[in-house]
Amino acid sequence: MNKRLLLAGLAFALGAGVTHTALAQVKPEILVKQRQAAMTLQAKYIGPLVGMAQGKIPYNADTVAMNAALLDALSRMPWDGFAPASKDATVKNAALPAVWSEPAKFKQAQENFQNAVQALVKVSRGGDEAAQKAAIGGVGKACGGCHENFREKQ
Amino acid sequence: MNKRLLLAGLAFALGAGVTHTALAQVKPEILVKQRQAAMTLQAKYIGPLVGMAQGKIPYNADTVAMNAALLDALSRMPWDGFAPASKDATVKNAALPAVWSEPAKFKQAQENFQNAVQALVKVSRGGDEAAQKAAIGGVGKACGGCHENFREKQ
Repeated sequence: MNKRLLLAGLAFALGAGVTHTALAQVKPEILVKQRQAAMTLQAKYIGPLVGMAQGKIPYNADTVAMNAALLDALSRMPWDGFAPASKDATVKNAALPAVWSEPAKFKQAQENFQNAVQALVKVSRGGDEAAQKAAIGGVGKACGGCHENFREKQ
Repeated sequence: MNKRLLLAGLAFALGAGVTHTALAQVKPEILVKQRQAAMTLQAKYIGPLVGMAQGKIPYNADTVAMNAALLDALSRMPWDGFAPASKDATVKNAALPAVWSEPAKFKQAQENFQNAVQALVKVSRGGDEAAQKAAIGGVGKACGGCHENFREKQ
């Protein structure tokens, strides 16, 4: 890691057509595996921040900044894994039928989460601990808000 | 996704002590799951680029830029999942004993990969297709170089 800079600032200009062309070649089971991998890593990096916000882990501004940057990337990764082809995957997964029967609502839940992560990224660059903890709470709420309607109860 | 900017440019100043404190609370099986998740997603985003470099998928500069940015984040994620505690994980995994018996060599292999990703990130911002394809090849080579010594043959 070595305190390197996370290079980025890239504009996302991915054409929808390109995404779909690539997805058409991906097996449903792989789509499930990939989206679950993104969820696993989101939990890895939001978990310690939630612990900080709840006062269970000592607050560390560097960890907030790093994890926010990684969540910025991760928050973009799960969604194409819910492509229609993945609906019939034969591997165990917790996605509810509402993912596909209520696409507008699911899309809104994704955007709520991504917006909450962006809000965290913004405040993670300053040193305002209270604002950061509030933004962490916002991300946690957005996670739960999506899981409430679109994931089987765990 | 909506062509939003991938915010970042954050300096990584995570204290090693913080990482270890957090890791001490993570079960070996979770460490394995998290590092495998990172590998799964690295494959997701490098795969199409390798296809482009090999001429099997049409070249798309936007996809190169996006996937490079996501790989920048992902390339930082697997390594703490190989913490000593994970050596005794009871879940199936392909890590060879050399991960723990040759730590300096393993660390070097990680750095080779991260450097290759950084090289790709740099050229992904320009439009030089040949340079990008060369950098993609460098990332693929670094993946294979690490797997050769530290992952069971698949």
